[in-house]
Amino acid sequence: MVLYFIGLGLGDEKDITVKGLEAVQKSTYIYLESYTSCLITPKSKLEEFYGKPIIEADRIMVESGCDEMLERAKNNDVSFLVVGDPFCATTHSDLFMRAAKLHIQLIVIHNASIFTAIGYSGLQLYKFGETVSVPFFTERWRPYSFYNKILENKRRGLHTLVLLDIKVKEQSEEDLMRGRLVFQPPRFMTANIACQQILEAEDNTQSGLIQRNDLVIGLLRMGTPQQTIVVKPIEEMANMENLGDPLHSLIIPGELHEIEQEMMQFHSNTIN
Amino acid sequence: MVLYFIGLGLGDEKDITVKGLEAVQKSTYIYLESYTSCLITPKSKLEEFYGKPIIEADRIMVESGCDEMLERAKNNDVSFLVVGDPFCATTHSDLFMRAAKLHIQLIVIHNASIFTAIGYSGLQLYKFGETVSVPFFTERWRPYSFYNKILENKRRGLHTLVLLDIKVKEQSEEDLMRGRLVFQPPRFMTANIACQQILEAEDNTQSGLIQRNDLVIGLLRMGTPQQTIVVKPIEEMANMENLGDPLHSLIIPGELHEIEQEMMQFHSNTIN
Repeated sequence: MVLYFIGLGLGDEKDITVKGLEAVQKSTYIYLESYTSCLITPKSKLEEFYGKPIIEADRIMVESGCDEMLERAKNNDVSFLVVGDPFCATTHSDLFMRAAKLHIQLIVIHNASIFTAIGYSGLQLYKFGETVSVPFFTERWRPYSFYNKILENKRRGLHTLVLLDIKVKEQSEEDLMRGRLVFQPPRFMTANIACQQILEAEDNTQSGLIQRNDLVIGLLRMGTPQQTIVVKPIEEMANMENLGDPLHSLIIPGELHEIEQEMMQFHSNTIN
Repeated sequence: MVLYFIGLGLGDEKDITVKGLEAVQKSTYIYLESYTSCLITPKSKLEEFYGKPIIEADRIMVESGCDEMLERAKNNDVSFLVVGDPFCATTHSDLFMRAAKLHIQLIVIHNASIFTAIGYSGLQLYKFGETVSVPFFTERWRPYSFYNKILENKRRGLHTLVLLDIKVKEQSEEDLMRGRLVFQPPRFMTANIACQQILEAEDNTQSGLIQRNDLVIGLLRMGTPQQTIVVKPIEEMANMENLGDPLHSLIIPGELHEIEQEMMQFHSNTIN
Protein backbone atom coordinates (compact mmCIF):
# COMPACT_ATOMS: atom_id res chain seq x y z
CA MET A 1 0.00 0.00 0.00
CA VAL A 2 1.39 3.37 -1.01
CA LEU A 3 0.66 6.99 -0.15
CA TYR A 4 1.50 9.00 -3.25
CA PHE A 5 2.40 12.68 -2.92
CA ILE A 6 1.55 13.93 -6.40
CA GLY A 7 2.21 17.38 -7.86
CA LEU A 8 -0.49 18.61 -10.25
CA GLY A 9 1.59 21.31 -11.90
CA LEU A 10 0.28 24.81 -12.39
CA GLY A 11 -2.48 24.71 -14.96
CA ASP A 12 -5.33 22.35 -15.62
CA GLU A 13 -6.13 18.65 -15.21
CA LYS A 14 -3.71 17.64 -17.97
CA ASP A 15 -0.66 19.07 -16.24
CA ILE A 16 -0.36 15.97 -14.07
CA THR A 17 2.43 13.66 -15.23
CA VAL A 18 1.67 10.31 -16.86
CA LYS A 19 3.19 8.65 -13.79
CA GLY A 20 0.99 10.74 -11.50
CA LEU A 21 -2.11 9.87 -13.47
CA GLU A 22 -1.30 6.17 -13.27
CA ALA A 23 -0.92 6.47 -9.49
CA VAL A 24 -4.28 8.25 -9.21
CA GLN A 25 -5.90 5.53 -11.26
CA LYS A 26 -4.46 2.84 -8.95
CA SER A 27 -5.60 4.67 -5.80
CA THR A 28 -8.72 3.82 -3.82
CA TYR A 29 -8.88 7.27 -2.20
CA ILE A 30 -7.84 10.57 -3.70
CA TYR A 31 -7.31 13.69 -1.59
CA LEU A 32 -6.75 17.17 -2.97
CA GLU A 33 -4.86 19.66 -0.83
CA SER A 34 -6.85 22.83 -1.29
CA TYR A 35 -5.68 25.42 1.15
CA THR A 36 -2.04 26.39 0.61
CA SER A 37 -2.52 26.77 -3.09
CA CYS A 38 -5.18 27.38 -5.64
CA LEU A 39 -6.04 25.27 -8.62
CA ILE A 40 -7.16 27.07 -11.72
CA THR A 41 -9.31 24.08 -12.66
CA PRO A 42 -12.41 23.19 -10.63
CA LYS A 43 -12.33 19.94 -8.67
CA SER A 44 -15.19 18.59 -10.79
CA LYS A 45 -12.98 18.74 -13.87
CA LEU A 46 -10.29 16.70 -12.18
CA GLU A 47 -12.92 14.17 -11.10
CA GLU A 48 -14.22 13.89 -14.63
CA PHE A 49 -10.72 13.42 -16.02
CA TYR A 50 -9.79 10.75 -13.44
CA GLY A 51 -13.22 9.12 -13.48
CA LYS A 52 -13.08 9.09 -9.67
CA PRO A 53 -14.34 11.17 -6.75
CA ILE A 54 -11.92 13.47 -4.93
CA ILE A 55 -11.96 14.32 -1.23
CA GLU A 56 -10.98 17.89 -0.46
CA ALA A 57 -8.28 18.28 2.18
CA ASP A 58 -8.86 21.80 3.45
CA ARG A 59 -6.98 23.84 6.01
CA ILE A 60 -8.84 22.32 8.92
CA MET A 61 -8.24 18.77 7.76
CA VAL A 62 -4.55 19.32 7.01
CA GLU A 63 -3.89 21.14 10.30
CA SER A 64 -5.64 18.44 12.25
CA GLY A 65 -3.25 15.93 10.75
CA CYS A 66 -5.14 14.15 8.01
CA ASP A 67 -5.75 11.21 10.34
CA GLU A 68 -8.43 9.68 8.16
CA MET A 69 -6.18 9.77 5.12
CA LEU A 70 -3.25 8.21 6.96
CA GLU A 71 -5.48 5.52 8.45
CA ARG A 72 -6.76 4.62 5.00
CA ALA A 73 -3.23 4.59 3.54
CA LYS A 74 -2.35 1.67 5.83
CA ASN A 75 -4.58 -0.63 3.82
CA ASN A 76 -5.21 1.16 0.52
CA ASP A 77 -3.33 3.00 -2.18
CA VAL A 78 -4.03 6.68 -1.54
CA SER A 79 -3.12 9.76 -3.61
CA PHE A 80 -2.52 13.14 -2.01
CA LEU A 81 -2.69 15.76 -4.76
CA VAL A 82 -0.97 19.10 -4.39
CA VAL A 83 -1.04 22.00 -6.85
CA GLY A 84 2.45 22.66 -8.22
CA ASP A 85 5.08 20.39 -6.64
CA PRO A 86 4.18 18.49 -3.45
CA PHE A 87 7.03 19.95 -1.39
CA CYS A 88 6.78 23.65 -1.96
CA ALA A 89 4.84 24.15 1.30
CA THR A 90 6.17 22.96 4.64
CA THR A 91 2.98 21.45 5.92
CA HIS A 92 3.57 18.54 3.64
CA SER A 93 6.94 17.74 5.17
CA ASP A 94 5.08 17.38 8.42
CA LEU A 95 2.51 15.06 6.88
CA PHE A 96 5.25 13.13 5.12
CA MET A 97 7.10 12.49 8.38
CA ARG A 98 3.94 11.43 10.20
CA ALA A 99 3.16 8.96 7.41
CA ALA A 100 6.70 7.60 7.47
CA LYS A 101 6.52 7.04 11.23
CA LEU A 102 3.39 4.95 10.62
CA HIS A 103 5.48 2.84 8.20
CA ILE A 104 3.36 3.84 5.23
CA GLN A 105 5.27 3.51 1.96
CA LEU A 106 5.67 6.93 0.37
CA ILE A 107 6.23 7.82 -3.26
CA VAL A 108 6.74 11.40 -4.40
CA ILE A 109 5.84 12.46 -7.94
CA HIS A 110 7.27 15.90 -8.66
CA ASN A 111 5.89 18.52 -11.00
CA ALA A 112 6.33 22.11 -12.12
CA SER A 113 5.94 24.94 -9.62
CA ILE A 114 6.30 28.69 -9.81
CA PHE A 115 9.95 28.21 -8.75
CA THR A 116 10.75 26.64 -12.12
CA ALA A 117 8.14 28.28 -14.31
CA ILE A 118 9.79 31.67 -13.69
CA GLY A 119 12.52 30.54 -16.07
CA TYR A 120 10.12 31.47 -18.86
CA SER A 121 10.87 35.13 -18.04
CA GLY A 122 14.33 34.57 -19.49
CA LEU A 123 16.07 35.29 -16.19
CA GLN A 124 18.48 32.60 -15.08
CA LEU A 125 17.22 30.52 -12.19
CA TYR A 126 20.56 30.26 -10.45
CA LYS A 127 20.76 34.05 -10.12
CA PHE A 128 17.69 34.34 -7.91
CA GLY A 129 18.27 35.18 -4.26
CA GLU A 130 15.91 34.68 -1.34
CA THR A 131 12.23 34.52 -2.28
CA VAL A 132 9.92 37.11 -0.77
CA SER A 133 6.23 36.98 0.12
CA VAL A 134 4.21 40.19 0.10
CA PRO A 135 1.21 40.17 2.46
CA PHE A 136 -1.92 42.25 1.90
CA PHE A 137 -1.43 45.48 3.84
CA THR A 138 -4.31 46.43 6.11
CA GLU A 139 -5.06 49.83 7.55
CA ARG A 140 -3.02 49.19 10.66
CA TRP A 141 -0.60 46.49 9.53
CA ARG A 142 1.85 47.56 6.85
CA PRO A 143 5.04 45.57 7.40
CA TYR A 144 8.03 46.46 5.23
CA SER A 145 10.28 43.59 6.28
CA PHE A 146 9.85 41.82 2.94
CA TYR A 147 11.38 44.84 1.27
CA ASN A 148 14.70 44.47 3.05
CA LYS A 149 15.11 41.06 1.48
CA ILE A 150 14.53 42.48 -1.99
CA LEU A 151 17.18 45.12 -1.28
CA GLU A 152 19.65 42.53 0.02
CA ASN A 153 19.24 40.57 -3.21
CA LYS A 154 19.56 43.69 -5.33
CA ARG A 155 22.76 44.72 -3.56
CA ARG A 156 24.22 41.36 -4.57
CA GLY A 157 22.97 41.69 -8.16
CA LEU A 158 20.43 38.90 -7.64
CA HIS A 159 16.87 38.65 -8.90
CA THR A 160 13.98 38.37 -6.46
CA LEU A 161 10.91 36.21 -6.96
CA VAL A 162 8.05 37.96 -5.17
CA LEU A 163 5.13 35.72 -4.24
CA LEU A 164 1.84 37.51 -3.68
CA ASP A 165 -0.62 36.97 -0.88
CA ILE A 166 -3.45 34.48 -1.29
CA LYS A 167 -6.36 34.42 1.14
CA VAL A 168 -8.27 31.17 0.72
CA LYS A 169 -10.78 29.79 3.22
CA GLU A 170 -10.17 32.67 5.62
CA GLN A 171 -12.73 33.33 8.34
CA SER A 172 -13.84 36.84 9.26
CA GLU A 173 -12.92 38.02 12.77
CA GLU A 174 -16.56 37.84 13.76
CA ASP A 175 -17.12 34.32 12.40
CA LEU A 176 -13.90 33.18 14.03
CA MET A 177 -14.96 34.58 17.43
CA ARG A 178 -18.38 32.97 17.16
CA GLY A 179 -16.86 29.69 16.04
CA ARG A 180 -18.73 29.74 12.74
CA LEU A 181 -17.13 27.79 9.89
CA VAL A 182 -18.02 30.38 7.28
CA PHE A 183 -15.31 31.30 4.81
CA GLN A 184 -14.66 34.63 3.14
CA PRO A 185 -14.46 34.66 -0.67
CA PRO A 186 -10.88 34.00 -1.84
CA ARG A 187 -8.64 37.02 -2.47
CA PHE A 188 -5.57 37.01 -4.67
CA MET A 189 -3.09 39.85 -4.72
CA THR A 190 -2.48 41.15 -8.23
CA ALA A 191 0.86 42.37 -9.55
CA ASN A 192 -0.24 46.03 -9.55
CA ILE A 193 -1.13 45.94 -5.84
CA ALA A 194 2.22 44.32 -5.07
CA CYS A 195 4.00 47.10 -6.96
CA GLN A 196 2.05 49.75 -5.03
CA GLN A 197 3.10 48.16 -1.74
CA ILE A 198 6.73 47.91 -2.86
CA LEU A 199 6.72 51.60 -3.83
CA GLU A 200 5.21 52.48 -0.45
CA ALA A 201 7.96 50.48 1.26
CA GLU A 202 10.59 52.32 -0.80
CA ASP A 203 9.01 55.69 0.04
CA ASN A 204 9.23 54.83 3.71
CA THR A 205 12.71 53.31 3.77
CA GLN A 206 14.29 55.63 1.18
CA SER A 207 16.86 53.04 0.13
CA GLY A 208 17.20 54.56 -3.32
CA LEU A 209 17.83 51.07 -4.68
CA ILE A 210 14.53 50.84 -6.51
CA GLN A 211 13.57 53.74 -8.75
CA ARG A 212 10.09 54.38 -10.06
CA ASN A 213 11.14 53.71 -13.66
CA ASP A 214 12.98 50.45 -12.95
CA LEU A 215 11.63 47.56 -14.99
CA VAL A 216 9.88 44.76 -13.14
CA ILE A 217 8.42 41.54 -14.51
CA GLY A 218 4.83 40.53 -13.91
CA LEU A 219 4.26 36.78 -14.08
CA LEU A 220 0.61 36.22 -14.82
CA ARG A 221 -1.09 32.82 -14.67
CA MET A 222 2.21 30.97 -15.06
CA GLY A 223 1.93 27.40 -16.26
CA THR A 224 -1.56 27.88 -17.67
CA PRO A 225 -2.40 28.33 -21.36
CA GLN A 226 -2.95 32.03 -20.51
CA GLN A 227 0.53 32.51 -19.07
CA THR A 228 1.74 36.03 -19.77
CA ILE A 229 4.89 37.95 -18.96
CA VAL A 230 4.54 41.71 -18.58
CA VAL A 231 7.66 43.89 -18.41
CA LYS A 232 7.01 47.46 -17.25
CA PRO A 233 8.48 50.23 -15.10
CA ILE A 234 7.32 49.52 -11.54
CA GLU A 235 5.32 52.75 -11.33
CA GLU A 236 3.46 51.92 -14.52
CA MET A 237 2.78 48.34 -13.38
CA ALA A 238 1.41 49.73 -10.10
CA ASN A 239 -1.27 51.51 -12.12
CA MET A 240 -2.29 48.56 -14.31
CA GLU A 241 -5.70 47.42 -13.17
CA ASN A 242 -6.32 45.14 -16.12
CA LEU A 243 -3.80 42.38 -15.52
CA GLY A 244 -6.52 39.75 -15.50
CA ASP A 245 -7.14 36.56 -13.57
CA PRO A 246 -4.89 35.22 -10.80
CA LEU A 247 -2.38 33.89 -9.95
CA HIS A 248 0.19 36.64 -10.28
CA SER A 249 3.79 36.78 -9.14
CA LEU A 250 6.50 39.35 -9.69
CA ILE A 251 10.22 39.48 -10.35
CA ILE A 252 12.42 42.36 -9.25
CA PRO A 253 15.45 41.89 -11.51
CA GLY A 254 19.01 42.27 -10.26
CA GLU A 255 21.94 42.65 -12.65
CA LEU A 256 21.10 41.43 -16.12
CA HIS A 257 23.24 39.45 -18.54
CA GLU A 258 22.92 40.24 -22.21
CA ILE A 259 20.62 37.33 -22.99
CA GLU A 260 18.44 38.16 -19.99
CA GLN A 261 18.15 41.73 -21.21
CA GLU A 262 17.19 40.54 -24.67
CA MET A 263 14.50 38.25 -23.31
CA MET A 264 13.08 41.08 -21.15
CA GLN A 265 13.10 43.31 -24.19
CA PHE A 266 11.35 40.58 -26.13
CA HIS A 267 8.61 40.25 -23.51
CA SER A 268 8.16 44.01 -23.25
CA ASN A 269 7.69 44.27 -27.01
CA THR A 270 5.28 41.45 -27.56
CA ILE A 271 2.82 42.00 -24.73
CA ASN A 272 1.03 45.15 -23.67
CA MET B 1 1.59 25.06 -36.63
CA VAL B 2 3.15 25.08 -33.18
CA LEU B 3 6.62 24.66 -31.74
CA TYR B 4 6.18 23.09 -28.33
CA PHE B 5 8.85 23.55 -25.66
CA ILE B 6 8.18 20.54 -23.45
CA GLY B 7 9.77 19.69 -20.11
CA LEU B 8 10.32 15.97 -19.53
CA GLY B 9 10.76 16.17 -15.77
CA LEU B 10 13.60 14.45 -14.00
CA GLY B 11 13.05 10.73 -14.19
CA ASP B 12 11.85 8.39 -16.91
CA GLU B 13 9.54 8.51 -19.93
CA LYS B 14 6.43 8.70 -17.75
CA ASP B 15 7.43 11.98 -16.09
CA ILE B 16 6.17 13.93 -19.07
CA THR B 17 2.80 15.60 -18.38
CA VAL B 18 -0.37 14.38 -20.04
CA LYS B 19 -0.48 17.70 -21.91
CA GLY B 20 3.13 17.24 -23.02
CA LEU B 21 2.44 13.72 -24.23
CA GLU B 22 -0.54 14.90 -26.26
CA ALA B 23 1.62 17.57 -27.89
CA VAL B 24 4.29 14.97 -28.76
CA GLN B 25 1.65 12.75 -30.29
CA LYS B 26 0.38 15.62 -32.44
CA SER B 27 3.89 16.55 -33.61
CA THR B 28 5.39 15.55 -36.94
CA TYR B 29 8.96 16.04 -35.72
CA ILE B 30 10.31 15.50 -32.21
CA TYR B 31 13.66 16.86 -31.08
CA LEU B 32 15.37 15.98 -27.81
CA GLU B 33 17.82 18.50 -26.35
CA SER B 34 20.64 16.28 -25.17
CA TYR B 35 23.56 18.43 -24.17
CA THR B 36 22.77 20.74 -21.26
CA SER B 37 21.15 17.98 -19.28
CA CYS B 38 21.15 14.26 -18.99
CA LEU B 39 18.18 11.97 -19.19
CA ILE B 40 18.24 8.91 -16.99
CA THR B 41 16.16 7.04 -19.57
CA PRO B 42 17.66 6.07 -22.95
CA LYS B 43 16.23 7.78 -26.03
CA SER B 44 15.02 4.43 -27.32
CA LYS B 45 12.69 4.11 -24.34
CA LEU B 46 11.14 7.49 -25.09
CA GLU B 47 10.71 6.48 -28.72
CA GLU B 48 9.01 3.27 -27.72
CA PHE B 49 6.68 5.12 -25.33
CA TYR B 50 5.75 7.77 -27.91
CA GLY B 51 5.65 5.34 -30.83
CA LYS B 52 7.69 7.87 -32.82
CA PRO B 53 11.30 8.52 -33.78
CA ILE B 54 13.24 11.26 -31.96
CA ILE B 55 15.93 13.48 -33.43
CA GLU B 56 18.74 14.29 -31.03
CA ALA B 57 19.58 17.97 -30.72
CA ASP B 58 23.15 17.91 -29.49
CA ARG B 59 25.48 20.73 -28.52
CA ILE B 60 26.58 21.33 -32.08
CA MET B 61 23.03 21.49 -33.37
CA VAL B 62 21.77 23.79 -30.60
CA GLU B 63 24.73 26.14 -30.83
CA SER B 64 24.36 26.38 -34.57
CA GLY B 65 20.79 27.53 -34.06
CA CYS B 66 18.57 24.55 -34.78
CA ASP B 67 17.82 25.93 -38.23
CA GLU B 68 16.38 22.69 -39.52
CA MET B 69 13.99 22.45 -36.58
CA LEU B 70 12.82 26.05 -36.95
CA GLU B 71 12.35 25.61 -40.70
CA ARG B 72 10.20 22.54 -40.10
CA ALA B 73 8.16 24.32 -37.40
CA LYS B 74 6.90 26.79 -39.99
CA ASN B 75 4.80 24.08 -41.63
CA ASN B 76 4.55 21.30 -39.05
CA ASP B 77 3.85 20.81 -35.37
CA VAL B 78 7.23 20.23 -33.77
CA SER B 79 8.13 19.23 -30.19
CA PHE B 80 11.39 20.31 -28.57
CA LEU B 81 11.92 18.11 -25.51
CA VAL B 82 14.08 19.27 -22.63
CA VAL B 83 14.95 17.29 -19.49
CA GLY B 84 13.50 19.01 -16.42
CA ASP B 85 11.76 22.28 -17.27
CA PRO B 86 12.38 23.86 -20.70
CA PHE B 87 13.65 27.18 -19.31
CA CYS B 88 16.24 26.17 -16.77
CA ALA B 89 19.08 26.67 -19.27
CA THR B 90 19.56 29.96 -21.10
CA THR B 91 20.23 28.54 -24.50
CA HIS B 92 16.54 27.89 -24.82
CA SER B 93 15.62 31.54 -24.32
CA ASP B 94 17.77 32.23 -27.32
CA LEU B 95 16.03 29.56 -29.39
CA PHE B 96 12.65 30.77 -28.15
CA MET B 97 13.33 34.32 -29.29
CA ARG B 98 14.59 33.20 -32.69
CA ALA B 99 11.45 31.13 -33.19
CA ALA B 100 9.22 34.05 -32.14
CA LYS B 101 10.94 36.35 -34.62
CA LEU B 102 10.08 33.83 -37.35
CA HIS B 103 6.42 34.15 -36.24
CA ILE B 104 6.27 30.51 -35.17
CA GLN B 105 3.56 29.94 -32.55
CA LEU B 106 5.17 28.80 -29.30
CA ILE B 107 3.65 26.82 -26.46
CA VAL B 108 5.58 26.05 -23.28
CA ILE B 109 4.74 22.98 -21.21
CA HIS B 110 6.48 23.21 -17.85
CA ASN B 111 7.66 20.35 -15.67
CA ALA B 112 9.63 19.56 -12.54
CA SER B 113 13.29 20.51 -12.29
CA ILE B 114 15.93 20.22 -9.62
CA PHE B 115 14.90 23.72 -8.47
CA THR B 116 11.57 22.39 -7.20
CA ALA B 117 12.51 18.79 -6.41
CA ILE B 118 14.88 20.04 -3.69
CA GLY B 119 11.77 20.75 -1.60
CA TYR B 120 11.78 17.03 -0.83
CA SER B 121 14.75 17.69 1.45
CA GLY B 122 12.36 19.47 3.81
CA LEU B 123 14.12 22.80 3.42
CA GLN B 124 11.86 25.66 2.44
CA LEU B 125 12.31 26.80 -1.14
CA TYR B 126 11.92 30.49 -0.41
CA LYS B 127 14.92 30.40 1.95
CA PHE B 128 17.40 29.43 -0.77
CA GLY B 129 19.86 32.09 -1.89
CA GLU B 130 21.88 32.20 -5.07
CA THR B 131 22.50 28.83 -6.70
CA VAL B 132 26.09 27.71 -7.13
CA SER B 133 27.74 25.49 -9.74
CA VAL B 134 30.86 23.55 -8.79
CA PRO B 135 33.17 22.76 -11.71
CA PHE B 136 35.52 19.78 -11.80
CA PHE B 137 38.90 20.98 -10.52
CA THR B 138 41.83 20.12 -12.74
CA GLU B 139 45.46 20.04 -11.75
CA ARG B 140 46.01 23.66 -12.75
CA TRP B 141 42.50 25.11 -12.51
CA ARG B 142 41.02 25.16 -9.03
CA PRO B 143 38.71 28.19 -8.86
CA TYR B 144 37.18 28.98 -5.46
CA SER B 145 34.80 31.71 -6.63
CA PHE B 146 31.75 29.46 -6.19
CA TYR B 147 32.63 29.19 -2.52
CA ASN B 148 32.18 32.93 -1.88
CA LYS B 149 28.56 32.65 -2.98
CA ILE B 150 27.94 29.82 -0.52
CA LEU B 151 29.45 31.98 2.23
CA GLU B 152 27.33 34.99 1.24
CA ASN B 153 24.20 32.87 1.50
CA LYS B 154 25.31 31.38 4.80
CA ARG B 155 25.97 34.82 6.29
CA ARG B 156 22.36 35.71 5.52
CA GLY B 157 21.07 32.41 6.95
CA LEU B 158 20.09 31.14 3.51
CA HIS B 159 20.43 27.66 2.07
CA THR B 160 22.54 27.04 -1.03
CA LEU B 161 21.67 24.65 -3.83
CA VAL B 162 24.95 23.40 -5.25
CA LEU B 163 24.75 22.02 -8.79
CA LEU B 164 27.54 19.66 -9.75
CA ASP B 165 29.52 19.63 -12.96
CA ILE B 166 28.36 17.51 -15.89
CA LYS B 167 30.63 16.84 -18.84
CA VAL B 168 28.60 15.51 -21.73
CA LYS B 169 29.79 15.35 -25.32
CA GLU B 170 33.10 16.99 -24.45
CA GLN B 171 35.99 16.66 -26.87
CA SER B 172 39.55 15.99 -25.73
CA GLU B 173 42.06 18.78 -26.33
CA GLU B 174 43.73 16.67 -28.96
CA ASP B 175 40.52 15.81 -30.81
CA LEU B 176 39.46 19.44 -30.65
CA MET B 177 42.77 20.59 -32.14
CA ARG B 178 42.58 18.02 -34.90
CA GLY B 179 38.92 18.85 -35.58
CA ARG B 180 37.79 15.32 -34.82
CA LEU B 181 34.17 14.99 -33.66
CA VAL B 182 34.99 12.31 -31.10
CA PHE B 183 33.37 12.71 -27.70
CA GLN B 184 34.74 11.76 -24.31
CA PRO B 185 32.59 9.48 -22.15
CA PRO B 186 30.22 11.56 -19.99
CA ARG B 187 31.40 12.50 -16.50
CA PHE B 188 29.14 13.45 -13.62
CA MET B 189 30.43 14.97 -10.42
CA THR B 190 29.29 13.03 -7.37
CA ALA B 191 28.35 14.62 -4.03
CA ASN B 192 31.51 13.33 -2.31
CA ILE B 193 33.78 15.03 -4.86
CA ALA B 194 31.84 18.27 -4.46
CA CYS B 195 32.31 18.09 -0.67
CA GLN B 196 36.06 17.51 -1.12
CA GLN B 197 36.31 20.58 -3.33
CA ILE B 198 34.26 22.69 -0.90
CA LEU B 199 36.53 21.62 1.98
CA GLU B 200 39.58 22.48 -0.12
CA ALA B 201 38.08 25.94 -0.80
CA GLU B 202 37.45 26.41 2.93
CA ASP B 203 41.02 25.32 3.76
CA ASN B 204 42.31 27.92 1.34
CA THR B 205 40.01 30.79 2.24
CA GLN B 206 39.79 30.08 6.00
CA SER B 207 36.37 31.70 6.34
CA GLY B 208 35.52 29.57 9.35
CA LEU B 209 31.89 29.60 8.21
CA ILE B 210 31.83 25.95 7.23
CA GLN B 211 33.12 23.44 9.76
CA ARG B 212 34.08 19.88 8.98
CA ASN B 213 31.24 18.48 11.07
CA ASP B 214 28.50 20.72 9.61
CA LEU B 215 25.65 18.74 8.13
CA VAL B 216 25.13 18.91 4.39
CA ILE B 217 22.42 17.31 2.28
CA GLY B 218 23.21 15.07 -0.67
CA LEU B 219 20.43 14.97 -3.27
CA LEU B 220 20.85 11.79 -5.24
CA ARG B 221 18.93 10.99 -8.43
CA MET B 222 16.16 13.48 -7.57
CA GLY B 223 12.89 12.92 -9.35
CA THR B 224 13.68 9.31 -10.22
CA PRO B 225 12.27 6.28 -8.39
CA GLN B 226 15.73 5.95 -6.80
CA GLN B 227 15.73 9.47 -5.36
CA THR B 228 17.60 9.54 -2.07
CA ILE B 229 18.43 12.23 0.44
CA VAL B 230 21.64 11.74 2.46
CA VAL B 231 22.31 13.97 5.46
CA LYS B 232 25.91 13.79 6.76
CA PRO B 233 28.68 15.96 8.16
CA ILE B 234 30.50 17.41 5.15
CA GLU B 235 33.75 15.65 5.99
CA GLU B 236 32.00 12.30 6.16
CA MET B 237 30.13 12.93 2.89
CA ALA B 238 33.47 13.80 1.26
CA ASN B 239 34.62 10.26 2.02
CA MET B 240 31.53 8.43 0.76
CA GLU B 241 32.46 6.67 -2.47
CA ASN B 242 29.29 4.62 -2.67
CA LEU B 243 26.67 7.25 -3.36
CA GLY B 244 25.59 5.50 -6.55
CA ASP B 245 24.44 6.63 -9.96
CA PRO B 246 24.17 10.27 -11.08
CA LEU B 247 22.78 12.90 -11.01
CA HIS B 248 23.82 14.30 -7.66
CA SER B 249 23.32 17.76 -6.20
CA LEU B 250 24.06 19.17 -2.77
CA ILE B 251 22.52 21.58 -0.29
CA ILE B 252 24.57 23.61 2.17
CA PRO B 253 21.93 24.54 4.75
CA GLY B 254 21.70 28.00 6.29
CA GLU B 255 19.68 28.66 9.43
CA LEU B 256 17.11 25.96 10.07
CA HIS B 257 13.55 26.28 11.29
CA GLU B 258 12.24 23.60 13.60
CA ILE B 259 10.38 21.69 10.90
CA GLU B 260 13.42 21.85 8.61
CA GLN B 261 15.57 20.45 11.38
CA GLU B 262 13.09 17.64 11.97
CA MET B 263 13.00 16.73 8.29
CA MET B 264 16.82 16.69 8.14
CA GLN B 265 16.85 14.50 11.23
CA PHE B 266 14.30 12.26 9.57
CA HIS B 267 16.43 11.87 6.44
CA SER B 268 19.59 11.27 8.44
CA ASN B 269 17.88 8.49 10.40
CA THR B 270 16.25 6.65 7.56
CA ILE B 271 19.04 6.50 5.02
CA ASN B 272 22.65 5.46 5.47
